[in-house]
Amino acid sequence: MIRTSIITIGDELLIGQVIDTNSAWMAQELNKAGIAVNRRVAVGDAWDDIWNALDEESKHADIILITGGLGPTADDITKPLLCKYFGGTMVTNEAARHNVINIFNRLNRPIIERNLLQGEVPDVCTVIQNNRGTAPGMWFNKEGKVYVSMPGVPFEMKGMMTDDVIPALQKQFELPVILHRTLLTAGVGESFLADLIQSYETALPARIKLAYLPNFGMVRLRLSTSGYDTTTVGKEIDEQFTQLQNLVKDYLVTNEDEALEQVVGKLLLQQNKTMCTAESCTGGYIAHLLTSIAGSSAFYDGSVISYSYGAKEDLLGVNHDTLLTKGAVSEEVITQMAKGALQRIKSDYVIAVSGIMGPGGGMPEKPVGTVWVAVGDKNKIVTQKMFFRFDRARNIQLTAAHALNMLRKFIIEG
Amino acid sequence: MIRTSIITIGDELLIGQVIDTNSAWMAQELNKAGIAVNRRVAVGDAWDDIWNALDEESKHADIILITGGLGPTADDITKPLLCKYFGGTMVTNEAARHNVINIFNRLNRPIIERNLLQGEVPDVCTVIQNNRGTAPGMWFNKEGKVYVSMPGVPFEMKGMMTDDVIPALQKQFELPVILHRTLLTAGVGESFLADLIQSYETALPARIKLAYLPNFGMVRLRLSTSGYDTTTVGKEIDEQFTQLQNLVKDYLVTNEDEALEQVVGKLLLQQNKTMCTAESCTGGYIAHLLTSIAGSSAFYDGSVISYSYGAKEDLLGVNHDTLLTKGAVSEEVITQMAKGALQRIKSDYVIAVSGIMGPGGGMPEKPVGTVWVAVGDKNKIVTQKMFFRFDRARNIQLTAAHALNMLRKFIIEG
Repeated sequence: MIRTSIITIGDELLIGQVIDTNSAWMAQELNKAGIAVNRRVAVGDAWDDIWNALDEESKHADIILITGGLGPTADDITKPLLCKYFGGTMVTNEAARHNVINIFNRLNRPIIERNLLQGEVPDVCTVIQNNRGTAPGMWFNKEGKVYVSMPGVPFEMKGMMTDDVIPALQKQFELPVILHRTLLTAGVGESFLADLIQSYETALPARIKLAYLPNFGMVRLRLSTSGYDTTTVGKEIDEQFTQLQNLVKDYLVTNEDEALEQVVGKLLLQQNKTMCTAESCTGGYIAHLLTSIAGSSAFYDGSVISYSYGAKEDLLGVNHDTLLTKGAVSEEVITQMAKGALQRIKSDYVIAVSGIMGPGGGMPEKPVGTVWVAVGDKNKIVTQKMFFRFDRARNIQLTAAHALNMLRKFIIEG
Repeated sequence: MIRTSIITIGDELLIGQVIDTNSAWMAQELNKAGIAVNRRVAVGDAWDDIWNALDEESKHADIILITGGLGPTADDITKPLLCKYFGGTMVTNEAARHNVINIFNRLNRPIIERNLLQGEVPDVCTVIQNNRGTAPGMWFNKEGKVYVSMPGVPFEMKGMMTDDVIPALQKQFELPVILHRTLLTAGVGESFLADLIQSYETALPARIKLAYLPNFGMVRLRLSTSGYDTTTVGKEIDEQFTQLQNLVKDYLVTNEDEALEQVVGKLLLQQNKTMCTAESCTGGYIAHLLTSIAGSSAFYDGSVISYSYGAKEDLLGVNHDTLLTKGAVSEEVITQMAKGALQRIKSDYVIAVSGIMGPGGGMPEKPVGTVWVAVGDKNKIVTQKMFFRFDRARNIQLTAAHALNMLRKFIIEG
């Protein structure tokens, strides 16, 4: 089995200023191409640490993918280091140099020497041209192993991976097929699921791996396998996946690796319906999740984010007296918000949320984490009071997940 | 200098199903406590890979922090592995066992054997009780090095780090102070900045490191240093930071390590003003950024997310004929959206955005990436047409960043 390591370079990764999203994307795409990632290592912009990481990952892996440290400024040392590591000399690559010049011309910005130097590469590498930025990628072969250096800018790295690196790796290595099947459950914990499917899990063939991924009060179950005979491998995992779905059918949300908002979007599209939202405490996060889906305008009409009392009254028609007597976080207000949004935005379905996400704003009778959610249509509104005991960001995420799941059930159960 | 490695365990990290946010948070908190992180390694739920990672990081680091793989299901093997690695025997820890029972009682869920086993730990560790979940943390000492194993659930790991692990590390090691100073610039690229501050950068003392962090068309500059004499270290970096701010003053957005939405929020609070948003193409993302800030209800009133024509007309009073003749992505419509939101939500300032984020929806005269932004108050609306050439997620982020920066300038320049 071909083994792969990803090395990400940058001090920002080690002081926590930046969250590494590159590795997850790379791992996903590599998996699709039959390339399993075994290790991911992050090191800072420090000569010895990068050098050691190259030495060590060479022992672990056949393919070593490197991102970061290719910028034009003095803190970026990856390129000269790789040049020395592979025993090369820096030379100008005309195509890379022209690419830099073209980009600056297009942006109508003056070009400086520092930028032109981005066109230099070690003479021992194959250059991967960068169609989305100025820093070229570099491909090195050494003792049967492949090393590829790419920029840390996600958009640039993604272009190189898709257009050049993955196709070239598929040519150079004989790769297996790697298959995953993922389903999402709601309403029960992972221990309960583990007991429910215990005899199934014990009987699983060794080459199929089962994983439990709890998240936001829901649990994903994932089967993984790999092999060289695509038909057999696919048939086997699909059979096991069908059994698994059957065992957890009472809690099954979707049998695809998709987010809850995508499940809701698909349901709406199938029924040719639309939805809207009225968000107070989640402050647009539910709208953001839904509108992050390409083509969401076909099922999502819009939202009113009513943070202030005034916005609740003027935009959603919530009754002033109800707000004063019951408070913004109440069943009465959430019902009025839902009805107001439906009426004004004229969608088929609605989600409305109002709560106290913290850290401030809690009251003895309504502590931080109290949330009212309403879902429904013009005939019926269903409400639920929830309580989350986490920090602000997680309370917002949990509220969004639970509200989307409530709407999903409402649509299915009618 | 004390060296630290973080090991994260979980197949989901290596197939890209989950983005690792734990490491970034841990690195931030460790830095504040004077603990520099030198390496981060992610491995799957595979016995040999975890074992090797422990062996290797032992060579690199004095402190090895481990997260993940402590769940109650069969795919989680970290605890038995650590027990064997440190030569222990599994024993019941009464406090950990009671914690599990209490949590299940509180949730009113039946407790099963699998859950009770979470109360077992190797007899060679010091147990770190988990106040936020069922899996206890484990602290091992071996040959002068510290190994701490924590759950992968962010909320649980954070509780342990803050309450127990960091204070205990501070006791066990003599730690330096690590200081960072970060500023944010807008309007120029990193190469331009690098030239602008070249002689400053060359003259920087070796113990102060300068980093360039380009993001969303803006560039962060970060100075870092460390040492044992807090006063001297702080004085030196502050003097250098003052010089740096002065050099880039024409492009300076903030001299704190904060996001643009926090800068805007602070400005509004200082002036005792509020704002609202009218979002089409960003679909609630700007609202989400603003409302992620604790206490944002003091400066943020709400938003209308008008994805459909109907929502633009009914909720914002956009003229039907204008929509038909000019289209939703036009200066006329964005101006009407801004005015409509200001009128209805009654805030002091407004941001309105309308554009085509892709991948679909482009037209010859309005290709994907075309965005109109308006910012202003009741006296004046400023509009700008922008063009982004990235994918949907990045186009949404860039639009939000540029719109927030436009409002920031509008507020400052009046």
